Amino acid sequence: MKRVYNFSAGPAVLPEEVLREAAEEMLDYQGTGMSVMEMSHRSKTIEGMMNEAAQDLRELLNIPEHYKILFLQGGASQQFAMIPMNLMKNRVADHLNTGQWAKKAISEGKLYGKINVIASSEDQNYSYIPDLKDLKFSEDADYVYICHNNTIFGTKFNKLPDVGDKPLIADMSSNFLSEPIDVTKYGLIFAGAQKNVGPAGVVIVIIREDLITEDVLPGTPTMLKYKVHFDNNSAYNTPPVYGIYICGKVFKWLKKLGGLEAMKKINEEKAAILYDYLDASDMFKGTVVKKDRSLMNVPFVTGSEELDAKFIKEAKAAGFENLKGYRTVGGMRASIYNAMPIQGVKDLVEFMKKFEAENK
Amino acid sequence: MKRVYNFSAGPAVLPEEVLREAAEEMLDYQGTGMSVMEMSHRSKTIEGMMNEAAQDLRELLNIPEHYKILFLQGGASQQFAMIPMNLMKNRVADHLNTGQWAKKAISEGKLYGKINVIASSEDQNYSYIPDLKDLKFSEDADYVYICHNNTIFGTKFNKLPDVGDKPLIADMSSNFLSEPIDVTKYGLIFAGAQKNVGPAGVVIVIIREDLITEDVLPGTPTMLKYKVHFDNNSAYNTPPVYGIYICGKVFKWLKKLGGLEAMKKINEEKAAILYDYLDASDMFKGTVVKKDRSLMNVPFVTGSEELDAKFIKEAKAAGFENLKGYRTVGGMRASIYNAMPIQGVKDLVEFMKKFEAENK
Ligand SMILES: Cc1ncc(COP(=O)(O)O)c(C=O)c1O
Ligand SMILES: Cc1ncc(COP(=O)(O)O)c(C=O)c1O
Ligand SMILES: [Mg+2]
Ligand SMILES: [Mg+2]
Ligand SMILES: [Mg+2]
Ligand SMILES: [Mg+2]
Repeated sequence: MKRVYNFSAGPAVLPEEVLREAAEEMLDYQGTGMSVMEMSHRSKTIEGMMNEAAQDLRELLNIPEHYKILFLQGGASQQFAMIPMNLMKNRVADHLNTGQWAKKAISEGKLYGKINVIASSEDQNYSYIPDLKDLKFSEDADYVYICHNNTIFGTKFNKLPDVGDKPLIADMSSNFLSEPIDVTKYGLIFAGAQKNVGPAGVVIVIIREDLITEDVLPGTPTMLKYKVHFDNNSAYNTPPVYGIYICGKVFKWLKKLGGLEAMKKINEEKAAILYDYLDASDMFKGTVVKKDRSLMNVPFVTGSEELDAKFIKEAKAAGFENLKGYRTVGGMRASIYNAMPIQGVKDLVEFMKKFEAENK
Repeated sequence: MKRVYNFSAGPAVLPEEVLREAAEEMLDYQGTGMSVMEMSHRSKTIEGMMNEAAQDLRELLNIPEHYKILFLQGGASQQFAMIPMNLMKNRVADHLNTGQWAKKAISEGKLYGKINVIASSEDQNYSYIPDLKDLKFSEDADYVYICHNNTIFGTKFNKLPDVGDKPLIADMSSNFLSEPIDVTKYGLIFAGAQKNVGPAGVVIVIIREDLITEDVLPGTPTMLKYKVHFDNNSAYNTPPVYGIYICGKVFKWLKKLGGLEAMKKINEEKAAILYDYLDASDMFKGTVVKKDRSLMNVPFVTGSEELDAKFIKEAKAAGFENLKGYRTVGGMRASIYNAMPIQGVKDLVEFMKKFEAENK
């Protein structure tokens, strides 16, 4: 069996331990004689597994009781519609435009109401987070929306906008569970599982109780109502059971590791190894302003497309997979999610040094 | 490792061979050094896997080129909204009410237009399929909708209504790939994967090309447009890759078995073993009129709630799992999907005979 260092932006590397356990339990989960894939979502075993996953997540993020956890389908992209459909009462929202995923949420929001883009970093190819001091929020905005970590551009909100009593909505698809957060600062947090948490096909929503309401926009499908999923404990219809099961194992793995404080330390250490080298290197450089750098997604370039291509090719041959950057940034991107071992980043930097020495 | 005979209505039994392969490949899929769960949906490997799954499905069902295959999220329940949102042009549809899932599609349809219920078997607790001869279709109906196999009530459309040139829409969640069908009789077929095909979290849609249009109802979320998923080869956003991978393995398993003609024979043999015994038994009897019986879901009762409960309990102790019927029918239900081995049905009938002898 071969394993590589997988720097994919998502779906992405998972803890090897989690995969091993899943493989072992594939035909017989906890002595039931069935696979998790084969069991009714109404069975005690699966209900128990789902509740335990939610409880572990609650502990990890220190989620207060008046915030509810939903395991849904449709990916993060479906949230771009669910959010306005459920939360727009005045049909107005304030958005910050910090990258491609922020932009997709803006265009989807426009299907349902007026979207005010109150700040943007598009002018510099999203290489920074806009100044949050002088934001002009709209009186009648139902919420303020941010993409907390910009997967493609490698920026992160290291501070939050001061939204007063407006609900702050955050797409945390690419930095969910990478460090502790204060959940009470948000009205709603969502994350596609396929980066830091599990396989594609599960999206996790953490929503403040008072935002779960019956009065959604006309024409909202039953499956797109938060209230329906909340009232049915995420099992209104058949949930993506196997994906939730893997997420649950990742939560246990995080708890065993020491929780999110411990995870944050490791992530900072990993990121520092890479950023320090990028700052010191004459060949490679990061594309993001220092203060707004992501802990998870690290885009970098050599300045020469040819050299970038050569690097990506040779890195792949050496067992460093999926380092090609997104086309709108170019160059390389190393996604160093929770499950990327520190050794993977050390080895990558060693490889980069060698490459630099050989190609200067 | 223990394995039981699992008669769950869904999520349901999968071929043991498929689960074994998935377990073996969990950490290293085809020498990539990554799990299928860890790989980008934009990678050659995953694109190839998804295309192969679609191609195998096309072969199995003999799907003509002008029908398109989509792998989506949201379960069958999300189709209850997607169908009207995408296919209603006049905002009128004709529905046949043959059970709980048929009814759910009706109520969801009413969010979007006028639903004419042109036939119903509600009067006899859905124990039969209504007469299809004198159906009065609505001139302006955009489509005619049926639930092809009624999971809860154990009925199946063994003939189809003659809908002329209206598109016939069929929910085949619980009998998909159980036997050959003539795809050209339908405008759209959909099936939640979690019964006959794979894990929960994937829904398969087969749709006639001309029904994939841009002019959907106002307010339709991007993720709920068939055209968006078709234009992006089911990868507009991150698809439920692992679920599709398991479906793909089930398709290969079916092909190896000899395809759907062979599968049908086996399913008929299995069903006959059970139905013949139900007809002969003095204690147990099926709840569905003979001509409308499902090959997949077999509800039966003893006539005594106490005896039903005793049977379910003893059957469970003997390794026959999930035989409890749905509350609206009561008694028992044996779901004998493709992956249920013939031996499982034989053993169940032996057990029923023994129980009958001991309890008369
Ligand atoms: C920040 C962010 N939001 C949303 C998405 C879209 O996720 P999905 O593919 O699950 O719809 C992504 C995917 O990469 C992402 O990185
Ligand atoms: C015939 C039929 N349609 C629809 C559904 C709903 O499927 P899902 O849970 O995937 O939404 C089911 C589930 O049992 C079903 O049997
Ligand atoms: Mg981005
Ligand atoms: Mg540098
Ligand atoms: Mg039914
Ligand atoms: Mg009888």
